[in-house]
Amino acid sequence: MDRALRDAILLLIRQARRILLIAHVAPDGDCIGSLLALGQALRALGKQAVLACPDPVPQPYHFLPGQEAITRDPVGEFQLLISLDSSDISRLGDIYRPAAFASVPLINIDHHTTNVHFGTVNWVDSDAASTAEMVYELIGELGVPLNPNMALCLLTGLVSDTRGFRTPTTTIRTMTIATRLMEAGASLTLITEQVLNRRPLAVIRLWGEALSTLQWRGRVIWAEITQAMRQRAGVQDNDAAGGLASFLASAHEADVAVVFSEKPDNKVEVGFRSVPGVDVSAIAFQLGGGGHPQASGCTLNGTLEAARQRVLAALDAALARQRGERVSGP
Amino acid sequence: MDRALRDAILLLIRQARRILLIAHVAPDGDCIGSLLALGQALRALGKQAVLACPDPVPQPYHFLPGQEAITRDPVGEFQLLISLDSSDISRLGDIYRPAAFASVPLINIDHHTTNVHFGTVNWVDSDAASTAEMVYELIGELGVPLNPNMALCLLTGLVSDTRGFRTPTTTIRTMTIATRLMEAGASLTLITEQVLNRRPLAVIRLWGEALSTLQWRGRVIWAEITQAMRQRAGVQDNDAAGGLASFLASAHEADVAVVFSEKPDNKVEVGFRSVPGVDVSAIAFQLGGGGHPQASGCTLNGTLEAARQRVLAALDAALARQRGERVSGP
Repeated sequence: MDRALRDAILLLIRQARRILLIAHVAPDGDCIGSLLALGQALRALGKQAVLACPDPVPQPYHFLPGQEAITRDPVGEFQLLISLDSSDISRLGDIYRPAAFASVPLINIDHHTTNVHFGTVNWVDSDAASTAEMVYELIGELGVPLNPNMALCLLTGLVSDTRGFRTPTTTIRTMTIATRLMEAGASLTLITEQVLNRRPLAVIRLWGEALSTLQWRGRVIWAEITQAMRQRAGVQDNDAAGGLASFLASAHEADVAVVFSEKPDNKVEVGFRSVPGVDVSAIAFQLGGGGHPQASGCTLNGTLEAARQRVLAALDAALARQRGERVSGP
Repeated sequence: MDRALRDAILLLIRQARRILLIAHVAPDGDCIGSLLALGQALRALGKQAVLACPDPVPQPYHFLPGQEAITRDPVGEFQLLISLDSSDISRLGDIYRPAAFASVPLINIDHHTTNVHFGTVNWVDSDAASTAEMVYELIGELGVPLNPNMALCLLTGLVSDTRGFRTPTTTIRTMTIATRLMEAGASLTLITEQVLNRRPLAVIRLWGEALSTLQWRGRVIWAEITQAMRQRAGVQDNDAAGGLASFLASAHEADVAVVFSEKPDNKVEVGFRSVPGVDVSAIAFQLGGGGHPQASGCTLNGTLEAARQRVLAALDAALARQRGERVSGP
């Protein structure tokens, strides 16, 4: 974090009495862990911190201390908003009320390359593997000593977003911060057990059904999750789709994996995963979404069939373009 | 490593001109990575190091520099043997020739609790998550600077044995050494990609079919892989079944996962996985197989149907017994 940015962030925090921290829609371990840790650090400084998320906290993160206080309906006045891990203001869902918050400064803390810098102050570090690593740094700048609870929340964020140190974004810095968080009392074993090694039986059943739709063409592999499959399996949240996409991307023969999830109101959520060297953030962005080079997503209107045709055509074009760039590149 | 042990090891290495390093039967990433790294370090000291393994190096480790020189038939005279990651001399297979090696000192370097101390000098550190961590320490004691190739081999060992930092053996020390190896030039991304993230598309297709047979009763979950499924998917080896059993055991609702694989000649291979606290080694043993408390297997004669009935009945009895022992235990 450069000095001017740090000073701007510290000043806004110092001036605020009551601060609203906001996680994103369809929350993951990184935004929830970052929210909880920063909330605790701000309280240690004597601030009133209210933690909000537009959607419920998914079950795998229920072991995190303080998650039960995350609200979907924050009330009262705030002198500062801090969004965590959101690349776009729409990711804040209905927590962000434009009229009420028009004159409230917003600090945008995020690690997504596709962040559109929607804040009053924007700290976007796309070299960080997780927002949790940035919050770790910020808590240090705030001069708050890490306690084991904060460390647990941050390490959960880091482990979730790197799928347990498996993404290419995992750097020496990521590993060093993970080690520091363990030294501060976070149990990697507990996090692995809660976040990586366990999933509901319903999700396994859903994968089974979804894998029966498996198809591939060239080096693209895809599967579909219909509303009916979700109902039969009893799976509500969208974690299952992300895990399935990562699993599909593990195929030797694939460079890109796509999972199409049918949603209510004639919408389709599309999750992309890719191997290092193939970028799926641009395609998600082009379709109105966002994300990282190796993991991105978007939501489309229309049927599964229409989404599949549109996405596969766009993907063919994007992959051909990337191959061209690699061949003729510098 | 305590000082007397270190001195004994360094003395044996200093006195030897030609040294045979031995990996174990059914080699894994830890013994192969440890072998390659220590071999390079010994050569840097001017020693002749011959690297041997009783079985071929598995495909996922073919990216490691120097693996092609690992021999199944070491010839000539040696002044020192070093076994890496073997708990018992039988694990050295036919590389260990009792008559020829009777008067040659053997350094036994291993991290398995069950090591039977078969060496002239035994360095067994069951706090290490991998033998690679011990070799990292030894290379430091030898005063050889780590080069990127050694670091790559050692980090591969560490990542393999911890399944990418996911085992409960992963400590602050493990993480610290992993970070140092990355600083020395090892690419965690390359290792993850080669060792953890990739499987053949055929295996993914087979999982899809097998998951359609998913059933559960109480806290036991199982699936079947028929010969026909294998043929349709084009999967020969049995790796797919082990991976599937581990995946099934990740169900929140399950304590034990079983995969029944139909084999030629009216045989069924049965793979068991369990959560910590539930032991599936005894049941496999009772049915003529063996293994570890959390991963075991056996082969039965008869049909899939017969195997399923026999195994599930035996499992019900064994689990009831274990529950009884836990309730009435010390």
